[in-house]
Amino acid sequence: MRGAVLYGAGDVRFEERAEPKIMEPTDAVIRIAATCVCGSDLWPYRGLQAVAQPTPFGHEYCGIVEETGGAVKSVKPGQFVIGSFFASDNTCPHCHNGYQTSCQRKEVVLGAQAPLLRVPLADGTLVATPGAPPDDLIPSLLACSDVLGTGWFAADAANVKPGATAVVVGDGAVGLLGVLSAKMMGAGRIIAMSRHETRQKLALEFGATDIVTERGDKGVARIKVMTKGVGADSVLECVGTQESMMQAIQATRPGGSIGYVGVPHGVELDGQKLFFTHVRLHGGPAPVRRYLPDLIRLVWERKIDPGKVFDLTLPLGQVAEGYRAMDERRAIKTLLRP
Amino acid sequence: MRGAVLYGAGDVRFEERAEPKIMEPTDAVIRIAATCVCGSDLWPYRGLQAVAQPTPFGHEYCGIVEETGGAVKSVKPGQFVIGSFFASDNTCPHCHNGYQTSCQRKEVVLGAQAPLLRVPLADGTLVATPGAPPDDLIPSLLACSDVLGTGWFAADAANVKPGATAVVVGDGAVGLLGVLSAKMMGAGRIIAMSRHETRQKLALEFGATDIVTERGDKGVARIKVMTKGVGADSVLECVGTQESMMQAIQATRPGGSIGYVGVPHGVELDGQKLFFTHVRLHGGPAPVRRYLPDLIRLVWERKIDPGKVFDLTLPLGQVAEGYRAMDERRAIKTLLRP
Repeated sequence: MRGAVLYGAGDVRFEERAEPKIMEPTDAVIRIAATCVCGSDLWPYRGLQAVAQPTPFGHEYCGIVEETGGAVKSVKPGQFVIGSFFASDNTCPHCHNGYQTSCQRKEVVLGAQAPLLRVPLADGTLVATPGAPPDDLIPSLLACSDVLGTGWFAADAANVKPGATAVVVGDGAVGLLGVLSAKMMGAGRIIAMSRHETRQKLALEFGATDIVTERGDKGVARIKVMTKGVGADSVLECVGTQESMMQAIQATRPGGSIGYVGVPHGVELDGQKLFFTHVRLHGGPAPVRRYLPDLIRLVWERKIDPGKVFDLTLPLGQVAEGYRAMDERRAIKTLLRP
Repeated sequence: MRGAVLYGAGDVRFEERAEPKIMEPTDAVIRIAATCVCGSDLWPYRGLQAVAQPTPFGHEYCGIVEETGGAVKSVKPGQFVIGSFFASDNTCPHCHNGYQTSCQRKEVVLGAQAPLLRVPLADGTLVATPGAPPDDLIPSLLACSDVLGTGWFAADAANVKPGATAVVVGDGAVGLLGVLSAKMMGAGRIIAMSRHETRQKLALEFGATDIVTERGDKGVARIKVMTKGVGADSVLECVGTQESMMQAIQATRPGGSIGYVGVPHGVELDGQKLFFTHVRLHGGPAPVRRYLPDLIRLVWERKIDPGKVFDLTLPLGQVAEGYRAMDERRAIKTLLRP
């Protein structure tokens, strides 16, 4: 089969790879219905994270179970399933506590930008849809695999409560779905920080009540004015730079919460400064598995349409163009169909 | 009157100072029944925090209202009162949210190691006891002013829940009262990290179920063994150094919470490392005022005896010896009586 392989900065190739096979009795192999490019794929693509060797890439996926190992009980061939970017056993203490991305047996799922994908720990990782999905639901179901789950975790970690004021830092697909998540959790006011017209438009569609185009200290000052000097109850940090993190911390009111899901790159926090802000900080790789059943149900019942973040759909063979379009911010998020 | 003045490292003097007076209509002046030396007083005393000029010191206090400004309504002369180290109006949005130490009008209360003290914003700061306290309750009532309130906030910020495993980093008076607070909040297991016999003994009296004498990585490894590799649900960080903060972060399970109340000195957090720990971080100057009514009630009803942390009582004139004894760890905490 042919799939995407990342060679280094700016170098994604679509090339022949061995077909994945069942290696452990807990594995499943799934035939990908749709996959996509993640914002976090752009860190190595932009040379901001080393690539030691050519690596099959992609970690967002949904599709039909092709084959299962002998120990797999909860899914079977023919079912349509969605899983997270970390495989988890969903039985260890960390999974039990809802942190499947810290599972004691966790394994990275990589190589999803391909027609077939091996998923370890299938019982603990994959969630089946109620039936075969209609084709128009596929983008939204795919979104559950990571980008929606991550935005949802950002809102959850930021303790978004009914009536609260939420600020979303970052207008990538995760940030936009953070807006949707905050809306679903009942936020009364959702301020999206974005200076890109198409993204602003989607943020408003997803439930943003206000758009702030300023960044950094000016952005913080704007949030302070909008909240009568108080700051926001909840801030979703969906970027991962020093500037975005400081913007998030400074926009939060004392006792308010920051949910940070942008993988931090070069972020250093001064303990004493953080201390006097009185903020709550929680984040990390989103435990998508915790939310998957609820998110799939919301999509299945057409209560949310997170698939709208995919504004570019390409055949898998054009994966390189999919990366380029996101890197150049011509696309919010690229969906790829094998 | 004569009171304590900090001149610099190792130099506390007991000397003549002007008597405090009502300066604003919202002020009260109180006659100190008891005051004490705070762990945070030791930072400048040890030369780890600059002292720009000779400064009247002390910020923990209880006593009888001597005089009030014309606008003060909630307390009156003759009442026994306790207040926090930051004066707060208790009406602004931050106070309303329970973060009185971030009050929009907050003022530092300083100079409590003296017979008389001016307290700004008396209505929002002082809480009166139900009546004149018996003398044996004075140490515990004094403890409410800061050290108990801070230990309580550490436990609250660390989300201590019934049945949970709590770890307390730091065996100073705040850490010890963090143990008591975790016990009152129903923690099932309370692990105190201490290598000092008298402090271990008090920790056990306050409700600790286990003592860990190792520090740093060895201390973390010990906690991991004790929690079957999982880590603690709640960790109270009551020191404020890089080592103690890392010890707290690494001892916490994914999704667990750290309440940090030791004023950080030289603490730097690596954003990416923090991200992958999945911990929750909350702390800051304890909003003691939020807890004061409950804490005073618990002391008044003799349900808790936080005054036990005072293992040295001196007349105020010997304040310098009070600092020395704590600096040299001969005393856990020094109570001073004018």
